[in-house]
Amino acid sequence: MQMKNHIKIKNSLFVLLLSACTLFGQKTIEKWKVFETTLNGPTDGNPFKEVQLSARFVGGGDTISVSGFYDGDGVYKIRFMPQQEGKWDYVTTSNVKKLNHKKGSFVCTPATKDNRGPVAVVDTFYFAYADGTPHHSFGTTCYGWVHQGDSLAEVTLKTLSKGYFNKIRMCIFPKSYDWNNNEPLYYPFEGTPLKNWDYSRLNPAFFRNIEKRIAQLDSLGIEADLIVFHPYDRWGFSALDRETENMYIDYIIARFAAFRNVWWSMANEYDFMRNKKLSDWDYYIEKFAKKDPFHHLIGIHNGVRFYDHTNPHLTHASIQNEDTYRAKELRMKYKKPVVFDECRYEGNIPWSWGNLTAQALTEKFWRGITNGGYVGHGDTYVTEDPIQFPDESSDVLWWSKGGVLRGESPERIKFLRGILEKAPPQMKPIPLFTWMPFSCIGIEHEYYLGYLNDAQPRSIVIDLPKDALYRVDVIDTWDMTITPMQKKFSGRSLIELPEKPYIAIRIIKQ
Amino acid sequence: MQMKNHIKIKNSLFVLLLSACTLFGQKTIEKWKVFETTLNGPTDGNPFKEVQLSARFVGGGDTISVSGFYDGDGVYKIRFMPQQEGKWDYVTTSNVKKLNHKKGSFVCTPATKDNRGPVAVVDTFYFAYADGTPHHSFGTTCYGWVHQGDSLAEVTLKTLSKGYFNKIRMCIFPKSYDWNNNEPLYYPFEGTPLKNWDYSRLNPAFFRNIEKRIAQLDSLGIEADLIVFHPYDRWGFSALDRETENMYIDYIIARFAAFRNVWWSMANEYDFMRNKKLSDWDYYIEKFAKKDPFHHLIGIHNGVRFYDHTNPHLTHASIQNEDTYRAKELRMKYKKPVVFDECRYEGNIPWSWGNLTAQALTEKFWRGITNGGYVGHGDTYVTEDPIQFPDESSDVLWWSKGGVLRGESPERIKFLRGILEKAPPQMKPIPLFTWMPFSCIGIEHEYYLGYLNDAQPRSIVIDLPKDALYRVDVIDTWDMTITPMQKKFSGRSLIELPEKPYIAIRIIKQ
Repeated sequence: MQMKNHIKIKNSLFVLLLSACTLFGQKTIEKWKVFETTLNGPTDGNPFKEVQLSARFVGGGDTISVSGFYDGDGVYKIRFMPQQEGKWDYVTTSNVKKLNHKKGSFVCTPATKDNRGPVAVVDTFYFAYADGTPHHSFGTTCYGWVHQGDSLAEVTLKTLSKGYFNKIRMCIFPKSYDWNNNEPLYYPFEGTPLKNWDYSRLNPAFFRNIEKRIAQLDSLGIEADLIVFHPYDRWGFSALDRETENMYIDYIIARFAAFRNVWWSMANEYDFMRNKKLSDWDYYIEKFAKKDPFHHLIGIHNGVRFYDHTNPHLTHASIQNEDTYRAKELRMKYKKPVVFDECRYEGNIPWSWGNLTAQALTEKFWRGITNGGYVGHGDTYVTEDPIQFPDESSDVLWWSKGGVLRGESPERIKFLRGILEKAPPQMKPIPLFTWMPFSCIGIEHEYYLGYLNDAQPRSIVIDLPKDALYRVDVIDTWDMTITPMQKKFSGRSLIELPEKPYIAIRIIKQ
Repeated sequence: MQMKNHIKIKNSLFVLLLSACTLFGQKTIEKWKVFETTLNGPTDGNPFKEVQLSARFVGGGDTISVSGFYDGDGVYKIRFMPQQEGKWDYVTTSNVKKLNHKKGSFVCTPATKDNRGPVAVVDTFYFAYADGTPHHSFGTTCYGWVHQGDSLAEVTLKTLSKGYFNKIRMCIFPKSYDWNNNEPLYYPFEGTPLKNWDYSRLNPAFFRNIEKRIAQLDSLGIEADLIVFHPYDRWGFSALDRETENMYIDYIIARFAAFRNVWWSMANEYDFMRNKKLSDWDYYIEKFAKKDPFHHLIGIHNGVRFYDHTNPHLTHASIQNEDTYRAKELRMKYKKPVVFDECRYEGNIPWSWGNLTAQALTEKFWRGITNGGYVGHGDTYVTEDPIQFPDESSDVLWWSKGGVLRGESPERIKFLRGILEKAPPQMKPIPLFTWMPFSCIGIEHEYYLGYLNDAQPRSIVIDLPKDALYRVDVIDTWDMTITPMQKKFSGRSLIELPEKPYIAIRIIKQ
């Protein structure tokens, strides 16, 4: 059963992802897609420990070295994401003769539609794809979805295909927690929970399964925010030794870094991992920054204590905190994009981080974004009746395993995402409203997107520039309506409002 | 017209408030009510500046000196609130022979029903009436209601008689601000706005009007939280000199302090008064503490910067801040009762401090109280259509002038007040819930009142003491229902909930 899956995965990887083909006798690969070459090598000894393999790629004026990895059964692979069009040549280096000095070449062809490349930070506070398209990050969280097997994963992917989100936070190691108490499909190391793990040998099937999911996410335009470590563990994976962790990290960089949609999240709730000190985290952050040949985004998510996101190797501030309006303050503190990856989830579970109303989570999105940040979603609805203590429940919660969304916030989040994607890029906080805590982002004199939280003003007075006329749209963020006002405004303006909560105002220069 | 009112006021004062009568030839006055004696003295010169008058009251082992005051027309008065039953003797001292060495006596009789005496601080964090009854402070704000004349004041008093509130914040000086732009009924000084004020002469009619309102509030069981200074002024009363301010304060202490329901609020938004330094505020705070013979409560309300409420003369921390859940933190910081006198108001005006939904204000009450604080109300609904800029509007808003309440929070506040008045006194914050930000107050092992904010859990797990059985009531704070659960609970308990926001839980030992 596992072997059949294995073969299917290999096929789909080749067809869907690698997208390499041969043109006039020359291998080609599209810019920002995965070039992969396979070599056969030794199976004896411990290939994970004893075989060193790397390759140097030269093309478009760049020279980039990448590590290879052992995929089991005597198969060694090297993956590469070309970021320059044109011809690339490569040559391998290995301590094994059979793998050493292998040469090859390919042509990197232009990106085609929907291939916008990896996301990076631009202009201090923003994200953009490599082709320049702004990336308005709308993340969700499914910690253990990759460990649940194909049938549930297919449902999850179908849900994700609805366009609510463009990023997903997901654990590499399996998770052990309420509503996450089943055994995972695969384990990352050789061995089983009933006998001691062989921490010197990784399990390629485990990682192959994850990269299948990374590729499927990519085909949906979704960034895979891979959580490298997390505290919710009953197998020992949260307390490995430095040598094993280094091997694991080298391996995931070699396997996953060629996928353009990978983000590295050092941890979920780093401060809840008792076996790691701040210096350990700094060490691994620096390791990713130095070893990842493609320089994917690097973040670290907190439990209660924010990490020092001024660390220059961290590309953005990944925050758990419910006060998303603090984005404005935190972006100035860290001088980086601020992503509220967790601000409590929509749901109905007993734990307060998972029982927001849809209104409250939608509000947190709007407040975070109109304060210059990015906000993430989660869905934690239990449906079983009567409710048992969580660890006795077999409910599938989106946040834990994926499946279907039960909340009402995703439609509103998608509505907001649509507004942002039509807005000018790189809007910044603007004090449009006299009175806090209302917030606004925009481009001075051109475009304003303001939000009035759960307030219910009958009208609002704003000072617009006097030298232009502005169209004002009243946005009901809950009912998802956009109502243009008949009148055009200029200077001190009194805007009449529907006297209900969750109203936003969009102001566009005419 | 003014004279007629004047006479009516005097009559009603005598009948309703002073409640002094003669019993077997001996004047009697009920404990905690106002004893008043009237003397005739000079009208020439400037009685406010030139006449000194005080009286020493001896009774029940106490000796208390009070200042008299000039009431105009040659009438001088001395007021006294006896706090000990039995015979009291008094003798006056004055620099005017006609007022000097006047003697008298009265008998202080026991308090009758509903007369619980003045409110004071008990056990660091709480308020209680002098008879020991807890005072759960439920305040509202009508800054300028006393300056609007009788017809509107009668409507205000009728509204207040509905039992929503037991304290009202009100300005002594008239207020000039949006929706408060009419001229007041009286001015505190001689003169008119069109010529210079004579700051050396107070206007007794102005203060007589206020004490009429204080007495009417008292008859409704409502504390009068008198705001001594405030910044919203177009007449000059926010920038008097020290001598004039001292005269004014001496006068209000002499006139008002004998009313049991008086609280002194040094300021509304002290930090918005540009003409006063912190040392000025400290001076006046100390003056009230030393000069008020009846030691009424003393607070000072902030705009954006909390006063240093550790000042030993401040009896409680009067706070303007929307985060009422901070009561728990602030009570530990200040070691005093924490009163969120302003946490934004229910309403629909453009300014964000006045456009909360009823749900949001009700939530702020519950969060503040279940974190060990007290919370205040305000109602800022405009009704005129179309809305004009505020200063063009003639709308009567409760917060500015009184009248009627338009919001939906008062009924919910009254519901909460009813719950607290049936609860044990002096409940303190208890970490009943594992997960913040839910909050709970209670008496360990006996009684718990917890609140789940706007969360919508389907159930909640709490650890109750194992050695007793508890009744659990699920309270819908919005629908105002209390539903006892059939089952009795002990130890680790799973409480099923209605999966909607604004739920509280009351747990009572059986």
